[in-house]
Amino acid sequence: MSSMNPRKRALPLPKTGRGEITRRKILDAAKREIGRRGFAEASVSTITTEAGVAQGTFYIYFRSKEDVMRELVLHMGRMLRHHLTEATAAATDRIDAERLGLRAFLDFVRRNPDLYKVVEESQFVDEKVYRQYYTEFAKSYRIALAASEKRGEIAPGRNGHTIEVRAWMLMGIAVFLGQRYGLWDPKVPLDPIVEAATGMIAHGLLPVPAATKSR
Amino acid sequence: MSSMNPRKRALPLPKTGRGEITRRKILDAAKREIGRRGFAEASVSTITTEAGVAQGTFYIYFRSKEDVMRELVLHMGRMLRHHLTEATAAATDRIDAERLGLRAFLDFVRRNPDLYKVVEESQFVDEKVYRQYYTEFAKSYRIALAASEKRGEIAPGRNGHTIEVRAWMLMGIAVFLGQRYGLWDPKVPLDPIVEAATGMIAHGLLPVPAATKSR
Repeated sequence: MSSMNPRKRALPLPKTGRGEITRRKILDAAKREIGRRGFAEASVSTITTEAGVAQGTFYIYFRSKEDVMRELVLHMGRMLRHHLTEATAAATDRIDAERLGLRAFLDFVRRNPDLYKVVEESQFVDEKVYRQYYTEFAKSYRIALAASEKRGEIAPGRNGHTIEVRAWMLMGIAVFLGQRYGLWDPKVPLDPIVEAATGMIAHGLLPVPAATKSR
Repeated sequence: MSSMNPRKRALPLPKTGRGEITRRKILDAAKREIGRRGFAEASVSTITTEAGVAQGTFYIYFRSKEDVMRELVLHMGRMLRHHLTEATAAATDRIDAERLGLRAFLDFVRRNPDLYKVVEESQFVDEKVYRQYYTEFAKSYRIALAASEKRGEIAPGRNGHTIEVRAWMLMGIAVFLGQRYGLWDPKVPLDPIVEAATGMIAHGLLPVPAATKSR
């Protein structure tokens, strides 16, 4: 999420290549430790042991466990944004973009379960960074939905809230399917899940008149 | 959630009226304390102070903070189930039930923000009780969706996953709108939000053919 602007760092970011490598090692170990044990139970000494650095080194790069969690949320936002942009680049229309995006998101959760859990838990550690994360995603969604609506690919809104409501609904759909099929049931083939979900995103629950049943 | 069966209690539940009143006072104070400060920061001594009981009294009723959190999740399940059943009793069909249920859920979140937050945070404290909470809701949803499908009120499934996928999508929609409009934006009138959401639940994103545009 290139437009996300984290609060100013109290500590200077080490600019050397070696510093950046150490920082990434710590972030990576923190992601696993917080993702597996939860924020409260996660220990800085386990993080530094897993990262292969001295415990004091942690505090050269981060002020606290909260600080490292915030960094992980921003990191996931950037990674996921990049991943979704690539996955939906060839989409032919909005419904195709939803299908490809949902598929890519579920893949991402399966490959990054710890990171996904860190982001979800962040709402109980620093609600501000969590809200920012989803508010930024909602903003991109609104832009995409407005453009699709203008092109006539999707139904016009019923009232001034429609685009915002749709954006949050689509995020909620992705997150709950990510939880159900990404985290808890990571073996089931994703194609039929995505097909069923795309059907509802495209047509809703009501029976589809024969003429529009193309997807 | 009457069918939920929490693990056997290690401590006997006090049966006296006075005991039950004390237990409820503790649960109520715990809900506020955990909801506001988060599980890790919540303190048993604040809970007992707010409940107006001695700190040792907490441990007559609950083994730990984890234990009280599990009780709150079960409590929210029961309350919400009851609330939704009442709210949707007069629904004329599935879409009407979704509209009334979503409206009732958003009202519930606005009136019980702390309880709602406790349930969401439980996934990072005791994933089992959180999964059970949503799995039970998904089960009720599947039963309702299958009945509606049989009556021809909603479109038949595309594959064997459809009912389960729809159930989790509808829960994700409710939870994300609950977060956005229940917790974070609790003043905006709910009617247009529910109207916009119901439109997408009924028809999806694609333009609606004129003949089926009745709701």
